[in-house]
Amino acid sequence: MTLLVVGSVAYDSIKTNSEQRTDVLGGSASYFSIASSYFTNVKLIAVVGNDFKRKDVDLFNSHSVDLSGLEIKTGETFRWSGMYGKDVNIRQTLSTNLNVFSDFSPKLNLSHVESPYLFLANIDPEIQLDVLNQMQRQPKLTALDTMNFWIEGSKASLLKIIRKVDMLFIDSNEALSLTGENNIAKAAKQIQNIGPGVVIIKKGEHGAILFNQDSIFIAPAYPIDNVVDPTGAGDSFAGGFMGILAASDGDTSDINLRRATIVGSIMGSYAVQNFSVHGLNALKLADVTARYNKIWAMSKFESTGESKSLPWSQFKPHG
Amino acid sequence: MTLLVVGSVAYDSIKTNSEQRTDVLGGSASYFSIASSYFTNVKLIAVVGNDFKRKDVDLFNSHSVDLSGLEIKTGETFRWSGMYGKDVNIRQTLSTNLNVFSDFSPKLNLSHVESPYLFLANIDPEIQLDVLNQMQRQPKLTALDTMNFWIEGSKASLLKIIRKVDMLFIDSNEALSLTGENNIAKAAKQIQNIGPGVVIIKKGEHGAILFNQDSIFIAPAYPIDNVVDPTGAGDSFAGGFMGILAASDGDTSDINLRRATIVGSIMGSYAVQNFSVHGLNALKLADVTARYNKIWAMSKFESTGESKSLPWSQFKPHG
Repeated sequence: MTLLVVGSVAYDSIKTNSEQRTDVLGGSASYFSIASSYFTNVKLIAVVGNDFKRKDVDLFNSHSVDLSGLEIKTGETFRWSGMYGKDVNIRQTLSTNLNVFSDFSPKLNLSHVESPYLFLANIDPEIQLDVLNQMQRQPKLTALDTMNFWIEGSKASLLKIIRKVDMLFIDSNEALSLTGENNIAKAAKQIQNIGPGVVIIKKGEHGAILFNQDSIFIAPAYPIDNVVDPTGAGDSFAGGFMGILAASDGDTSDINLRRATIVGSIMGSYAVQNFSVHGLNALKLADVTARYNKIWAMSKFESTGESKSLPWSQFKPHG
Repeated sequence: MTLLVVGSVAYDSIKTNSEQRTDVLGGSASYFSIASSYFTNVKLIAVVGNDFKRKDVDLFNSHSVDLSGLEIKTGETFRWSGMYGKDVNIRQTLSTNLNVFSDFSPKLNLSHVESPYLFLANIDPEIQLDVLNQMQRQPKLTALDTMNFWIEGSKASLLKIIRKVDMLFIDSNEALSLTGENNIAKAAKQIQNIGPGVVIIKKGEHGAILFNQDSIFIAPAYPIDNVVDPTGAGDSFAGGFMGILAASDGDTSDINLRRATIVGSIMGSYAVQNFSVHGLNALKLADVTARYNKIWAMSKFESTGESKSLPWSQFKPHG
């Protein structure tokens, strides 16, 4: 059930409408690994500088995240800073300093290369490719996340790695920009034709849409009325999703993928309720179950759970 | 089961990214009445000019919409023109000429004033108030739609009518602007405190959220990959919703409100597939049922239909 993740571990500086935080733990692999750690064993591949704090190592340890692939290099940890306006869905990047990430060349160890589940979190697609190539045997399941920065700057490498994975997580606007389509369903179809059979389009506060081979699942977001910091919501979503798949022995039945999407939504909802990974940090499985049941209650519209005809016979039948 | 609607009947000129139409039938009451006519008896209150075309009268007649409240006045029918860009969700109004609508003062007849269901479609809130005041007895159910134009220009009258209705339909951005909140759930709560126990927040391609007294229902939009013209989607949504409520004898149980929301979503999805009311024009109830079952299939995530615990026991229990 081991889930291997390669991605960034960073120190983020975040400004929101009302608050700010400096140099707090962030990065795609941080959010992903903590979110997925609730469901399965996680091993993390990343690099940090020698300024990386002991308390953040402890944090990963407290979630039993395997850090044997966390390289510590002389220099500074990757820094990202961004701000959110009154509409928390609009993010502006203020600065990006790759620091030790700029020449990161991951070396997988023996315990890494046989992992059955691999998640290539948002990072340079060349690194994603490198990691995939180091895997001893084809993992049971590979999934990828990316962002506009790579779509705009490294499209050729990105398409190369997209071709090789089973699943792609991507924001709705990024899906449109990657494919040149102006419709999400068409974009997903085009991505499926490139390679991944499963495409998960993330829509932030509007939820997510799962495009499987012959089925579409429209997943709501868990409604949060006190969004503090949306950073990491997508990585946490992917963490919940992949955590469920790894925990269920790679069950990619349509129903299990849908369940995984809902759990992804839930992990995203916890992530946005606090800065850094603090919204994810102290959960219990019972918390996740509670939101799972609440989302279920907020989504159902036939009490029997069975598809049925509406009682048209009682209606005026001019149609 | 009679559903009375007051609103606009207009000639719209629409530019989309690829096409344009001039002086086609539009207006909130047109979309609403045709959408709801599939489910119940509808009577329409509006005014048109003496340029109103015979074929548009015939269209309403073919849907058995009662036109005894459609006043024909010397002058021109209300004209609205707008355009949509590549992102069809962004509308720009090019011109609005109220024409005969500018001094519309509806006079309800005996058959109107006893209607059990009343929908005050998007129109000047003073006219909405006037119509409500003319009702002989309090209707079983009153619902209201509005838009930013009235929120910005006639807020006092708008709040007066909002206080008096059972249900409010409103776009998500307009709900925020009406209440000054930056969160939909908070905005809905504030509106419920003003008066209407049921608030339906419309989110266009992202669906709708129904806020009932003690329950929230997150309804998906039916995905359309060939949106032609989004004009009237919200009015058609309300038409489907209110049509179901009127047809089911005013059943406002939570499950029936949810069903009505889905049917609203479906009527909106048909509306956007063609210019003017042509997407709604030639439906059969079987078409609506087919989409109803498809939305159900795209929304469900527990095959049993029953809320249940996830199989956490099989997971690594560190959380």
